[in-house]
Amino acid sequence: MATRTDMANAIRALAMDAVQKANSGHPGMPMGMAEIGVALWGEGNYRHNPKNPHWFNRDRFILSNGHGSMLQYALLHLTGYDLSIDDIKNFRQLHSKTAGHPEYGYAPGVETTTGPLGQGISNAVGFALAEKLLAREFNQPGYDIVDHHTWVFLGDGCLMEGVSHEACALAGTWGLGKLVAFWDDNGISIDGHVEGWFNEDVPGRFEAYGWHVVRAVDGHNVDSVLQAIEEAKAVTDKPSLICCKTIIGKGSPNKADSHDSHGAPLGEAEIAATREAIGWKYPPFEIPQDIYDAWSRVKAGAEQEAEWQALFDKYALQHKDLAAEFKRRIAAELPGNWSNIVDAALAEAREKAETIATRKASQNALNAFVPKLPEMLGGSADLTGSNLTNWKGSTPLKREGNTLVGNHISYGVREFGMSAIMNGIQLHGGWRPYGATFLMFSEYARNALRMAALMKIPTLFVFTHDSIGLGEDGPTHQPIEQTPTLRLIPNMNVWRPCDTVESIVAWAHAIEQKTTPSTLIFSRQNLAFQQRTDEQVANIRKGGYVLKDVADAKVVLIGTGSELDVAVKAAEQLAAQGVAARVVSMPSTNVFDKQDQAYKDSVLLPGVPRLAVEAGVTDGWRKYVGLEGDVVGIDHFGESAPAGVLFKEFGITPENVAARAKALVK
Amino acid sequence: MATRTDMANAIRALAMDAVQKANSGHPGMPMGMAEIGVALWGEGNYRHNPKNPHWFNRDRFILSNGHGSMLQYALLHLTGYDLSIDDIKNFRQLHSKTAGHPEYGYAPGVETTTGPLGQGISNAVGFALAEKLLAREFNQPGYDIVDHHTWVFLGDGCLMEGVSHEACALAGTWGLGKLVAFWDDNGISIDGHVEGWFNEDVPGRFEAYGWHVVRAVDGHNVDSVLQAIEEAKAVTDKPSLICCKTIIGKGSPNKADSHDSHGAPLGEAEIAATREAIGWKYPPFEIPQDIYDAWSRVKAGAEQEAEWQALFDKYALQHKDLAAEFKRRIAAELPGNWSNIVDAALAEAREKAETIATRKASQNALNAFVPKLPEMLGGSADLTGSNLTNWKGSTPLKREGNTLVGNHISYGVREFGMSAIMNGIQLHGGWRPYGATFLMFSEYARNALRMAALMKIPTLFVFTHDSIGLGEDGPTHQPIEQTPTLRLIPNMNVWRPCDTVESIVAWAHAIEQKTTPSTLIFSRQNLAFQQRTDEQVANIRKGGYVLKDVADAKVVLIGTGSELDVAVKAAEQLAAQGVAARVVSMPSTNVFDKQDQAYKDSVLLPGVPRLAVEAGVTDGWRKYVGLEGDVVGIDHFGESAPAGVLFKEFGITPENVAARAKALVK
Repeated sequence: MATRTDMANAIRALAMDAVQKANSGHPGMPMGMAEIGVALWGEGNYRHNPKNPHWFNRDRFILSNGHGSMLQYALLHLTGYDLSIDDIKNFRQLHSKTAGHPEYGYAPGVETTTGPLGQGISNAVGFALAEKLLAREFNQPGYDIVDHHTWVFLGDGCLMEGVSHEACALAGTWGLGKLVAFWDDNGISIDGHVEGWFNEDVPGRFEAYGWHVVRAVDGHNVDSVLQAIEEAKAVTDKPSLICCKTIIGKGSPNKADSHDSHGAPLGEAEIAATREAIGWKYPPFEIPQDIYDAWSRVKAGAEQEAEWQALFDKYALQHKDLAAEFKRRIAAELPGNWSNIVDAALAEAREKAETIATRKASQNALNAFVPKLPEMLGGSADLTGSNLTNWKGSTPLKREGNTLVGNHISYGVREFGMSAIMNGIQLHGGWRPYGATFLMFSEYARNALRMAALMKIPTLFVFTHDSIGLGEDGPTHQPIEQTPTLRLIPNMNVWRPCDTVESIVAWAHAIEQKTTPSTLIFSRQNLAFQQRTDEQVANIRKGGYVLKDVADAKVVLIGTGSELDVAVKAAEQLAAQGVAARVVSMPSTNVFDKQDQAYKDSVLLPGVPRLAVEAGVTDGWRKYVGLEGDVVGIDHFGESAPAGVLFKEFGITPENVAARAKALVK
Repeated sequence: MATRTDMANAIRALAMDAVQKANSGHPGMPMGMAEIGVALWGEGNYRHNPKNPHWFNRDRFILSNGHGSMLQYALLHLTGYDLSIDDIKNFRQLHSKTAGHPEYGYAPGVETTTGPLGQGISNAVGFALAEKLLAREFNQPGYDIVDHHTWVFLGDGCLMEGVSHEACALAGTWGLGKLVAFWDDNGISIDGHVEGWFNEDVPGRFEAYGWHVVRAVDGHNVDSVLQAIEEAKAVTDKPSLICCKTIIGKGSPNKADSHDSHGAPLGEAEIAATREAIGWKYPPFEIPQDIYDAWSRVKAGAEQEAEWQALFDKYALQHKDLAAEFKRRIAAELPGNWSNIVDAALAEAREKAETIATRKASQNALNAFVPKLPEMLGGSADLTGSNLTNWKGSTPLKREGNTLVGNHISYGVREFGMSAIMNGIQLHGGWRPYGATFLMFSEYARNALRMAALMKIPTLFVFTHDSIGLGEDGPTHQPIEQTPTLRLIPNMNVWRPCDTVESIVAWAHAIEQKTTPSTLIFSRQNLAFQQRTDEQVANIRKGGYVLKDVADAKVVLIGTGSELDVAVKAAEQLAAQGVAARVVSMPSTNVFDKQDQAYKDSVLLPGVPRLAVEAGVTDGWRKYVGLEGDVVGIDHFGESAPAGVLFKEFGITPENVAARAKALVK
């Protein structure tokens, strides 16, 4: 019968052999965390069903040190997931499930894409928060239908990254007792032994955050790790950090405890020496059946799920409506009357015809939608009153004893942490997180936005104060290049609405997405209401549409957000001068780009010169206006002054647009 | 004679009145930190000369909580800088020195632009490191010509931001004893009382970083703050954090200790009530002469500078060469033979004609330049062996006792912290910092890059592994949109060289900049050497130039970096098919854009169709190829696979470029 040593060595063998075959990868971490893998996955502490990776009440496992992907692939393979030995052999090859880093949607059992350091642990904070809040909403006496742990492996790199500070501080504040992280304290990062650049007192730091810390665990002693896991599970009002002293590349006679084992194949000779040293007698990619048997969680996992299913079935009998709602929520289905809800909000906005800031219009949309969509979980990075992400039913999330009350998350001044936590909440299921900061500080969070797009998850990112319209706070706070650069993220829908109606459509479109995140960009200042026909309102969903048409247009003016009305007024001035100008509103270039060519041509009128106006860098608009057209924008940083002064100073005026447009007309 | 209370109240009055007049700004912080300002600036602990803000050995003061800018403007005005009461009255108006946030280059005495939270303290770590390393290099027994403190004010927001974690952990590791930060512990952030989102044990956290922490100081008691400053100065092997308990908006009867005083004018009535409450009898913008006299540092500052100048003059007699070099360094002048150094490096590269990765070419450039430029201070965010930022004279920076040895900074996995620290080093003077990570993780640091561009400082940002050529690490590590988005930052020069020669020119051009930061982007994989005439080599500095010309070109192919050779090979295939194609290499679109129209036309041949090829998102190239041209690029995320497989899979091949180019030819 297989021993724990055999089980750990199976991980070592798969990791070193797969990396060698790919001639690329990171063997050191899997070899160093093998016994921790045995304690968590092999000894059944991690509750999951390999044959149903989508069982909702499974524990979640996140490999925040994602470069050690072969550890996760080995664990998934050995415990019985649909990840074959051929998949392992195809490590890091095109279209294989076993990508270089764990990619969400590729291998079953991968809960989030990791690799960009610090974001996995931050996602995990989101998973644990989602679990806690969903349990609060759906659990009933005797029915803990939402009740699982979130387990994280992380390394020195994750701890050095600032985002780990942001997310872990919040985890402590929130008292996320079912979050347990294992620190792979191997003292090595890519540049070598870490003393010269990473000598902080990690346990002290996490205790300062309010975590429960299990210090000085021998990461190669399964019993010690098991003991630490018990201690962690026993503390239910604090997240736990288990500090595991390990040796990177353990087993390798010549490369263990060295960064040489971190990010490159060990080499055939060293692999042979390692086999000898650890007593692994089997050829590459061959695991004896008794070791598979010892690892398998197929039977145990099926039993765990069946037990939960029986509980849920009883719950469904006693709490019929709750159970139906729970099913809707975890299936991420919108209510059946969703289109009516949207239509009603649009009708009201058109009736009111308000000239208000689009951030206020956004709040109106939230007031229309969120009462009907309890899965919407809002928040702000310490700018609630500016971002207006709260709605009439909002109360701030805060801790009372070991429970959390409230439904609007105060993330504090932590934009990156907020965004990565939102991705975790979204990935967990049951929620549609949205969160906001000033558009400028999208930059602090940028890679989390990209990760949502890459993972094909519909996280909702809200950014207000979207241009020089911010005014006196000055260039550090005035976005110039941020909207254009956000549009360049693949699979990201960027919306910059011009008024109340477009704001509602932007929110509705974003909420309806299943595989695309959205960035919703709103103004600080009031924007004029635009009158539209029903057809025009319907066309907003196409990302760009004709707002003001004329017979025989000589020039097409394209505007977005606060500059749409500048284009409208410029067209009026042009009309007075005898120049027929069409006005196109383009709240989402990304969505417009997905329309068919006939529609796009019907909007942009090929052959007619075009001018785009937007208070930001201009280069991106060449895609629409060509070399022959013109762009009125701002290709330099802003200044500190009242908004009205700046628009004039920088030429974002109807007069300038009209003059520049006239120059285009032959 | 003015009391300390009068002095503090002068700050309060200036802050509340200026914010009221501007009808915009943040009075709460200046009113809450007024006594700390008295202790540091009023009592002479801050050593500076108001009449010469450029005195090199002045202390540095950084307002990391930059929204409280009126505090800094009040201190500068009161102590005697060239910042008049009219400047204060023009707070937040166009082209005034008193911008909404402190802007470097606007008001004298502002050492760095702050506002984006967490970056000021991170800059400060760079200032303190620069001081320590410059002192190591230039001080001689009896001649501490570099010997100053770096003082920081920071708030809760700075502490929540992840970048503060990154930078402060390094400050502790490095033992920066002359760095002293004052934490404005007022318990308020924009969303209200912070307990719900910020309840970490800040002193414990900073002790975990290895800082000296002075706990529980009454921030409204000048004597207590003075005592804390003495304690901080006495500890020379650790940075100090002075935790000052304060009341935001102190003095305001109805808005103190509330976020109502944080970011909006108090209002006329409350200002009147505050005047009454604090006993301030003077009208707005009127400060009695005795209070000015108490604040003035004009005489003391001039004496301090004169004393230092006398020391330096003696030093210059005894250490003539060192003094001359010191003057060159702080004037940021290149050595007189700089162009010869560059020419020699170019000649050697052209002679060798090596096909190597441009990251290796970059290292060759460093080996050619850095021995002649001791001001170059390199580093890497834990990727030294991958980024190849080290050179033959590099040794890793590390601490030995209370000194730092080595000259290549191991920043650890802290991209944002590294970049903000580099900005601080650059701002301090005496150094040209450069630092690297993978191009993907430019995103983690992005706002620090923007801040360099905004401040017009020539920080050098190096990014390697610049495309799908990274291969197996997969889409989380493969930059697709990063180069295009970096190009959109105003005042940023982005270089993506195609071979050894372009790599040298890129480095040389970047080093020569005085007011523009540069982003240097290099490949992981080998790139073919390109033969050039002398004229072509000279034209590299223009950002784009004709590399392969033909008579009567029917199409212009534009390439950058690793795709330049794809364009060259496509042109060869087109030639074989009878299609004459010119090849343009465009290593820097930003620099090319600055050339005159005649040059640009001579390169791009108006009227001839154009095709750009670059392994990234395509939209930005429409600026050069127009709607009629074509772009061969990648408008989706990458995959995990060997690099060669990916280039083929995504169509970045000479065959595809040739076919697409042929389709453009009428």
